Amino acid sequence: MTALWDPIFGATAVAGTTDDRAWLRALCDVEAALARAAATVGLLDAAAAKQIGAACADAATGDPAALGRRAAADGNPVIPLVRDLRAAVAEATQDRPADRGGAGTGGAAAGVHLGATSQDILDSATMLVAHRATAVIGAALAEAGDTCARLAREHRDTPMAGRTLLQQAAPTTFGAAAAGWGDGLDRAGSRLRAVRAELAVQFGGAAGTLAAVHPHGPAVRAALAHELGLADPGTVWHTERTRVAELAGALGTAAGAVGKIATDVVLLAQTELGEVREGAAGGSSAMPHKQNPIAAVTARAAATQAPGLVATLLAAMTTEFQRGAGPWHAEWAPLAALLNAAGGAATRLGDSLRGLRVDDEAMALNLRYLGALAEPGRADRDRRAAHDLVDRYLARRRTGTAHQ
Amino acid sequence: MTALWDPIFGATAVAGTTDDRAWLRALCDVEAALARAAATVGLLDAAAAKQIGAACADAATGDPAALGRRAAADGNPVIPLVRDLRAAVAEATQDRPADRGGAGTGGAAAGVHLGATSQDILDSATMLVAHRATAVIGAALAEAGDTCARLAREHRDTPMAGRTLLQQAAPTTFGAAAAGWGDGLDRAGSRLRAVRAELAVQFGGAAGTLAAVHPHGPAVRAALAHELGLADPGTVWHTERTRVAELAGALGTAAGAVGKIATDVVLLAQTELGEVREGAAGGSSAMPHKQNPIAAVTARAAATQAPGLVATLLAAMTTEFQRGAGPWHAEWAPLAALLNAAGGAATRLGDSLRGLRVDDEAMALNLRYLGALAEPGRADRDRRAAHDLVDRYLARRRTGTAHQ
Amino acid sequence: MTALWDPIFGATAVAGTTDDRAWLRALCDVEAALARAAATVGLLDAAAAKQIGAACADAATGDPAALGRRAAADGNPVIPLVRDLRAAVAEATQDRPADRGGAGTGGAAAGVHLGATSQDILDSATMLVAHRATAVIGAALAEAGDTCARLAREHRDTPMAGRTLLQQAAPTTFGAAAAGWGDGLDRAGSRLRAVRAELAVQFGGAAGTLAAVHPHGPAVRAALAHELGLADPGTVWHTERTRVAELAGALGTAAGAVGKIATDVVLLAQTELGEVREGAAGGSSAMPHKQNPIAAVTARAAATQAPGLVATLLAAMTTEFQRGAGPWHAEWAPLAALLNAAGGAATRLGDSLRGLRVDDEAMALNLRYLGALAEPGRADRDRRAAHDLVDRYLARRRTGTAHQ
Amino acid sequence: MTALWDPIFGATAVAGTTDDRAWLRALCDVEAALARAAATVGLLDAAAAKQIGAACADAATGDPAALGRRAAADGNPVIPLVRDLRAAVAEATQDRPADRGGAGTGGAAAGVHLGATSQDILDSATMLVAHRATAVIGAALAEAGDTCARLAREHRDTPMAGRTLLQQAAPTTFGAAAAGWGDGLDRAGSRLRAVRAELAVQFGGAAGTLAAVHPHGPAVRAALAHELGLADPGTVWHTERTRVAELAGALGTAAGAVGKIATDVVLLAQTELGEVREGAAGGSSAMPHKQNPIAAVTARAAATQAPGLVATLLAAMTTEFQRGAGPWHAEWAPLAALLNAAGGAATRLGDSLRGLRVDDEAMALNLRYLGALAEPGRADRDRRAAHDLVDRYLARRRTGTAHQ
Repeated sequence: MTALWDPIFGATAVAGTTDDRAWLRALCDVEAALARAAATVGLLDAAAAKQIGAACADAATGDPAALGRRAAADGNPVIPLVRDLRAAVAEATQDRPADRGGAGTGGAAAGVHLGATSQDILDSATMLVAHRATAVIGAALAEAGDTCARLAREHRDTPMAGRTLLQQAAPTTFGAAAAGWGDGLDRAGSRLRAVRAELAVQFGGAAGTLAAVHPHGPAVRAALAHELGLADPGTVWHTERTRVAELAGALGTAAGAVGKIATDVVLLAQTELGEVREGAAGGSSAMPHKQNPIAAVTARAAATQAPGLVATLLAAMTTEFQRGAGPWHAEWAPLAALLNAAGGAATRLGDSLRGLRVDDEAMALNLRYLGALAEPGRADRDRRAAHDLVDRYLARRRTGTAHQ
Repeated sequence: MTALWDPIFGATAVAGTTDDRAWLRALCDVEAALARAAATVGLLDAAAAKQIGAACADAATGDPAALGRRAAADGNPVIPLVRDLRAAVAEATQDRPADRGGAGTGGAAAGVHLGATSQDILDSATMLVAHRATAVIGAALAEAGDTCARLAREHRDTPMAGRTLLQQAAPTTFGAAAAGWGDGLDRAGSRLRAVRAELAVQFGGAAGTLAAVHPHGPAVRAALAHELGLADPGTVWHTERTRVAELAGALGTAAGAVGKIATDVVLLAQTELGEVREGAAGGSSAMPHKQNPIAAVTARAAATQAPGLVATLLAAMTTEFQRGAGPWHAEWAPLAALLNAAGGAATRLGDSLRGLRVDDEAMALNLRYLGALAEPGRADRDRRAAHDLVDRYLARRRTGTAHQ
Repeated sequence: MTALWDPIFGATAVAGTTDDRAWLRALCDVEAALARAAATVGLLDAAAAKQIGAACADAATGDPAALGRRAAADGNPVIPLVRDLRAAVAEATQDRPADRGGAGTGGAAAGVHLGATSQDILDSATMLVAHRATAVIGAALAEAGDTCARLAREHRDTPMAGRTLLQQAAPTTFGAAAAGWGDGLDRAGSRLRAVRAELAVQFGGAAGTLAAVHPHGPAVRAALAHELGLADPGTVWHTERTRVAELAGALGTAAGAVGKIATDVVLLAQTELGEVREGAAGGSSAMPHKQNPIAAVTARAAATQAPGLVATLLAAMTTEFQRGAGPWHAEWAPLAALLNAAGGAATRLGDSLRGLRVDDEAMALNLRYLGALAEPGRADRDRRAAHDLVDRYLARRRTGTAHQ
Repeated sequence: MTALWDPIFGATAVAGTTDDRAWLRALCDVEAALARAAATVGLLDAAAAKQIGAACADAATGDPAALGRRAAADGNPVIPLVRDLRAAVAEATQDRPADRGGAGTGGAAAGVHLGATSQDILDSATMLVAHRATAVIGAALAEAGDTCARLAREHRDTPMAGRTLLQQAAPTTFGAAAAGWGDGLDRAGSRLRAVRAELAVQFGGAAGTLAAVHPHGPAVRAALAHELGLADPGTVWHTERTRVAELAGALGTAAGAVGKIATDVVLLAQTELGEVREGAAGGSSAMPHKQNPIAAVTARAAATQAPGLVATLLAAMTTEFQRGAGPWHAEWAPLAALLNAAGGAATRLGDSLRGLRVDDEAMALNLRYLGALAEPGRADRDRRAAHDLVDRYLARRRTGTAHQ
């Protein structure tokens, strides 16, 4: 999405972690962290790591568009970025020209990108972007989940028609419905947290064997992970993309959980049902009398975009040999789009639920369609059952077992 | 897939757990288990549960096609199946006509489907089908993973060109490549096992509140889970489909891990590379001289079918209210197809790897393209690095931390 | 889908053209037609073509499962089928053993599969299957489209609330809504017919150059197309899969057009709206009072399965060189599934619409929500506008320009 | 994609027609054209149309990000844009305050958005964006197609191994391969042109009945189409989305045709085959000796993103009633992404093919694997067959029947 569409689909906050500037920052953060990691292991002196860090901090404020243009010839932005960093460090350290870019000559410039291949930097940056984005998404899911819990608690005894196949079927309560919503968000959030904790750095070198820094590769990788706050995968995963697939799956699951709830809100807000209304319902250019549940509508729209993006990322797992000739490159934009879609959907759902006005009377009135089933005597058992269901949901939340 | 296509795409074994007979058996198993669960909780007497169990065992051998035809009017096969079971139990127990199908009259026939709605049975049966199918798939992944470990061990020191973007880049070993393959299968298998352990029964009743058997619902559900060897979800998930999404994601991830390896095998088997050959390479109707890596080719083909099916299942999460009006129904065939695709892919990959003939000499010969990089002096470090990488992989496998 | 699921999702009729027996029949039809085509061109004598035709007719009644098992080693069913056909023809013609299967020796057995490669037969059979299936699907779309036209005509002046974002927005008529439905079906049907008319035979030989029968290749292909009632592509398209993609796109479009209408039916049938009801509404195992719009629900479910299958077929376009090593094989099952999904969706929609009971009074009653907008004075213009819209739709249908 | 990724994936040119500014310009172009159309029909005086046009031209240079932020509350950017335009026109015409934004009062401000609903503007703008983008994409496809024709002509007699399942199968020529590539691009381009010619304006008003301007709706629509250079659909298609689906299908088909060729280039460029090389092969941050076919690699990556986006757009066809509550909104970003992906893929493929260096000697050398099949005597027939195939392809191009 973009500056025009992001606010509509709730992606403004998450886009701050997935847009061009965020990618550039992440790439620079990884190069800087790699230098520090190399210093930790003793492959680089601390002063050089510091100089490299300064160059990275500076590069992080550069123009992503210009970098993109220069990246076209090489197929990824790391190659021109490394050239820039080496030149900047060389200049800053007044290296003799002969040292610039030379590997192993000892100049600080040679310590840039030490032992790494483009994919090490880009994969680590991708995980860093995902790590930052999933913090936003997770918070949005949690906020929406908390609102569900509040709705469940407040409406634990609010009778509502249970509808199956969109036909009134048997009485339930709005609290029970909200508990079901919350369950989905809690489970999706829990899974996303688990995946987030496994987001790992990449460090393998040219052919994925860590040969360039042998035998220090694992130590550098561990230090790099520590520097970036990411997991140490304990291995090279240049073309072993289950990590990306699991992230995609978790995001797709989260978007689906959101989409279900947004769909229910849109349906409950139908003119003829009128059981809920958004606090800040949107207008219409042609019909000023309308009260559109815009936040839920746009949450649905954002969520709808996830499954296709998940499919793209799964299809991109088929990377060839030691580095994919296309499948790898196919991950970047779709993953950013998926993070935006999931985060935007969760954010817009939060907007919708936060101010949701629940019309108990409309719910009660609609129950008339259930006839005898909705009569006090018969409905009482239904209500008690629904009440207990909510209690169990709230207990699960309290005890932190909500995700099971 | 079908009897014509299954053997080609490796789905014969898994199809035994996902085909029409398997679904019918699963549906009957769930109804029988529900009766036993109700008896455990004291809602049904043990004799009635036994009679119901006998009727279910009998119905499980019926004609799925006939059931399908009768199911069309109701939109799912549980409704006619329950009618059949009630009639069979009534006949067996010589209930008076008045008792047949009557709820609460105390006859054993009334104990059929006790407190359940169609979705309880169908969702539980779906999970049972998935539980059985993922056992087959998991075994196929494990077998292929073990073969990778063997290949990694045997070829720990077999030099091979590392190829990035399909260009020779730097030396590695075939063992290191096989370790990367194995990592993917181990991780995918590990995730699938975790999801499998959470496959849960469904029990919620008409509107998902467990009202019909209030307050015994949770106890019946727990007993049902115990009877079927599935997890107790602790909640109703009629329209909270993260469980299905997570299963889909794990299957898609497994298919992707398989697809990567199958692609590598196909590429390594290219005439011009000739680095591997399948033990039982396939022929050609027009070109008898060819040695097609058919098992890997069909593994790729099977794996290719997964992402779209995952997308379908994620899109189907948007179920309305207390039971989806289409999204729920949209899960059954795609999930079976996805189980077949993932299982078929893993099986065919196993076929490919099991008899894989590795041509060390061709690998060494091809390394000539790397020129100076492949010279003994320079290549030595690469080989040692790759050797260590394999050692770490084998150690992870031994210590059971392969999935991290 | 399968015998259990097909009736539920409307795929019984179309499955008769896409199931194992239908594939086997198509494969045999192509081999027989190829022999006749070769005879037409003078590459085979008429008697041999007749003998081959008899063998094909016989093989078409064989056991697809057995063929599938034998096909696994080669990756496609054509290879064992050709072996069978050659053996059958040889036996029937009492060829001397030396002649059996020998190319160019003049025996009728050598005329089997003349100049062809497996993909020629399988691609042509795929198109034949699609040609037969799209006849069924097209008829189902047309029938549903005709019903829409009837509904539009009958309800040209039936006021109904126009709903945007599921909020009542402004008055329209049910006729106008039905006209919009019909437009979609007409356009989708028109596109499917256009694609169907281009479904083409495949004939290219081993490497796609028609070398084996040079210079008679184009003539054989033209004759083959004539024999099978398919188009002559004028080229070889072994790895130029835009034809498959266009078919997939047309089927996906048709499924989407159906899904929209089925969704509207399900929504209009909601208890609280009650504006339509299916003639044969389905029951519920737990709620006998319900009137589920099962045909529309299952049409939606079938339609939902299309987008993912289209994505799979588009992804499979990336076939390598002169014959894909997996992508080609990945087309067969998904294409059959897509034909079933589109055909099933159209069939079930037809079931839904055919007996649809439109409740004019409920429509009028619901209009009360529009308040002043629905008052006779203001609503009159709306109704006239909608009336004219229906007239234009019916005129387009009459003049056959409905697809534009 | 974005300024960082666009150049890498070839989307810079097409993004100029799909980015935020382009959307804003298209929205303003539609509002201006609507005013002119209304004037043509006599619903607005020409001076007012001119004033509106000036306001639109001014608004088109505004800040899309600001518009996006204001659009969030309403769910689409048309609503705040119309407010802005009315205010600007009112100010420019010094309308009395009472007239501002008032409908029917006769001021020019009231002529803004005349008879339209947001979706009319947004759908028409979407088609305008698609119309402009498909011009770029079509040109890129055509250029790549022309290069294929040149390659086919130049290499009509360049022997090359025909490879099936990535195994050498029988001789062909590089010209024949290039002809197959060209066929795909020609067919995809032809289909895209056909779809482009049908890209139609939207004009239906609040509930899609054209009531607001009854009975002038069809005339306004025709004039609007004329003004924008788009087709007159002859109907309202607010929720009849086959047009979007057909566009998506054509773009997906084009991306697939590109992906096939890019895959072949990447495979032919493999170190061990060495049959082609890109003129401007890319480098590597860790392996300066490599010659990566970056343009083909990134073309593949761009193409890979299409199937999932097509699936999203097909799934979004399920719009409810008279305006979708989410499905409609779900089209915008994915359609822009799909246009970028298809256009980027075609552009990068053009880059790859334009400078492609074909190594005839490597092709000849690799033919040695075919042994006897490649001997002059046997290969001669193959070569003549391939030669004729190329001739037929070139003749089709000349006679403009390439698309059949």
